[in-house]
Amino acid sequence: MTTVTLVEEKDASTEVAEIYQDIRKTFGMPFVPNLFKAIAHNPAYLRASWERVKVVMGPGLIDRKTKEMIAIAVSAANGCDYCVLAHTAAFKSMGGNDAALVELMAVVDVFSGFNKMLEGLQVAPDIGV
Amino acid sequence: MTTVTLVEEKDASTEVAEIYQDIRKTFGMPFVPNLFKAIAHNPAYLRASWERVKVVMGPGLIDRKTKEMIAIAVSAANGCDYCVLAHTAAFKSMGGNDAALVELMAVVDVFSGFNKMLEGLQVAPDIGV
Amino acid sequence: MTTVTLVEEKDASTEVAEIYQDIRKTFGMPFVPNLFKAIAHNPAYLRASWERVKVVMGPGLIDRKTKEMIAIAVSAANGCDYCVLAHTAAFKSMGGNDAALVELMAVVDVFSGFNKMLEGLQVAPDIGV
Amino acid sequence: MTTVTLVEEKDASTEVAEIYQDIRKTFGMPFVPNLFKAIAHNPAYLRASWERVKVVMGPGLIDRKTKEMIAIAVSAANGCDYCVLAHTAAFKSMGGNDAALVELMAVVDVFSGFNKMLEGLQVAPDIGV
Amino acid sequence: MTTVTLVEEKDASTEVAEIYQDIRKTFGMPFVPNLFKAIAHNPAYLRASWERVKVVMGPGLIDRKTKEMIAIAVSAANGCDYCVLAHTAAFKSMGGNDAALVELMAVVDVFSGFNKMLEGLQVAPDIGV
Amino acid sequence: MTTVTLVEEKDASTEVAEIYQDIRKTFGMPFVPNLFKAIAHNPAYLRASWERVKVVMGPGLIDRKTKEMIAIAVSAANGCDYCVLAHTAAFKSMGGNDAALVELMAVVDVFSGFNKMLEGLQVAPDIGV
Repeated sequence: MTTVTLVEEKDASTEVAEIYQDIRKTFGMPFVPNLFKAIAHNPAYLRASWERVKVVMGPGLIDRKTKEMIAIAVSAANGCDYCVLAHTAAFKSMGGNDAALVELMAVVDVFSGFNKMLEGLQVAPDIGV
Repeated sequence: MTTVTLVEEKDASTEVAEIYQDIRKTFGMPFVPNLFKAIAHNPAYLRASWERVKVVMGPGLIDRKTKEMIAIAVSAANGCDYCVLAHTAAFKSMGGNDAALVELMAVVDVFSGFNKMLEGLQVAPDIGV
Repeated sequence: MTTVTLVEEKDASTEVAEIYQDIRKTFGMPFVPNLFKAIAHNPAYLRASWERVKVVMGPGLIDRKTKEMIAIAVSAANGCDYCVLAHTAAFKSMGGNDAALVELMAVVDVFSGFNKMLEGLQVAPDIGV
Repeated sequence: MTTVTLVEEKDASTEVAEIYQDIRKTFGMPFVPNLFKAIAHNPAYLRASWERVKVVMGPGLIDRKTKEMIAIAVSAANGCDYCVLAHTAAFKSMGGNDAALVELMAVVDVFSGFNKMLEGLQVAPDIGV
Repeated sequence: MTTVTLVEEKDASTEVAEIYQDIRKTFGMPFVPNLFKAIAHNPAYLRASWERVKVVMGPGLIDRKTKEMIAIAVSAANGCDYCVLAHTAAFKSMGGNDAALVELMAVVDVFSGFNKMLEGLQVAPDIGV
Repeated sequence: MTTVTLVEEKDASTEVAEIYQDIRKTFGMPFVPNLFKAIAHNPAYLRASWERVKVVMGPGLIDRKTKEMIAIAVSAANGCDYCVLAHTAAFKSMGGNDAALVELMAVVDVFSGFNKMLEGLQVAPDIGV
């Protein structure tokens, strides 16, 4: 259970409520994720984090669906249930099916294994790479 | 420095030499990566690992360039210099430039940060996700 | 569920019971944490670990409340629910509130993100640092 | 070696140059850290990250020196040489000496060890914590 | 809850069913672990992974019981409940008792702690090692 | 480079010098590892850590060579060059050759990969395990 109280929408200050509204609008979802409700105890940090999310997950050189896959892969490597679940839901809403999720995790599997084995053998990078 | 000797191509057994040849052909590169030279002390493990790499990085639902990005992201999260360098080189050879690398790492940054913060606050997954 | 039985106080040997008593006295708490009950199958390891905890968490150059914050931050980075919960409770008992916990996790967030991004771009340390 | 070119001050766009100036002024240091020069290929991400650093490391409920200790501890747990070195330098500039650094790392040691051991024995949180 | 459906034995294709049969025979267990049922959406990856498990966990220079201990230790360090539970069960079936599990975790504890502390102090390897 | 000065033997206090002597005698090596020289700024922590190492690495239910393998595996998973190198040297001095090191790392590889993949698919533990 979350170790801080969640700042619910009905209890939010005007500043926080405005950020919540922007989150719901941008995500196109009927609720504000717990992540943001938990950090709303620090409105300046909430605002700066949310602004950064919009920049990073917004349009750019890498498409949104690929970014969702990277979010899942990174969260798997770092061991975060919350983010794995949230971004798997997002990936599925964009058409990602079970086979694609397994193919994504196959890549995570291969490299997580090699990452640790190479550390264990202290393998030096290839010359010229 | 690698803690085991590398099995160089000229010293490889026939079995290992054949796998090396397949690696060079499939990767289209003029050398066999140190990763494989290090594990060649165990030919059965070398073969099984290589066969799996071919399956996982080969054609499927996710394109090769996206898989390279996932490889870099996972290796960054797991802290493996060797794989970061090898797959950044591969990504660049497919047209990935500095701006794309930074955009990729921006996603790694955002989620690695949230991953650990959410653990620290024990934030429960959103209902319905 | 714990994969070993917990050595409960009523079942403890004289040696273990004495360590338990010292733990309860030093922590000023009405129970012995499961951590110690789990490792009591190896009394020498229990004793050596407990002696080390007393040295490390005891008086020194860094005050106890700061050490609790470091314990939470490290446990968040390493992904340990047990320690996050135990040391968050300790931090709260010393006056740490929700806003302080979020501010603490904001630091964990920023650096966990940068840590992995810098690995992914292989950024070299600044000269002169 | 960094896998992207660093955007040096003399080559920076007006937008990036202004952020660099703010970084130097706020940090009170004669150079812009490589971290920011590496991500300047994406000015919007540079700006959003820098704004967040100012919020998180700025005045609040936790003093700056404690935040530097948390930055070192988290970066040690996550394995980032760059951040360990940068924030150890900052900590030393605030009066942190070798004994304080070792005391800080003693806390990191104790909890990193317990974190993984508790996972390995799947120890359940204490009731009432 | 698993984010993909599990491919149950009764629903498996002929190819997958044959691998399942081999898994049950080799493990000598009355069921196919969820791990394999989850990745069966990609039969080629399932097959390649299973073939590799047989090679790596099969006879060699390190005995099977030691390999189970290493599997538990690595899974504890990486934070995987699933593997900790599965391989603790295997270790117990080979005679591993509570005291042995605690002794194993004591080693994980000591080195996980030192690993992170040494990173935090950037201690250089001993000359001649 | 180590961020604290190393407390060399010739500069050590009587208390620290005695611990150093015990370390050299117990390890049977002609030098004191940098690990201990780095933390000697805090003699109580040095002593408590060393006492614990003796308990954990000493005689018990698991033989010393197996403990060295676990130390290497855990240090690989946690990403510590220092410990990988030190314990690989110890393992070699006990007869561990290149093939055994690769076989050890094959186990680390398989489980590190599965650990992260299972997290990414949120696979639930098998019933009855």
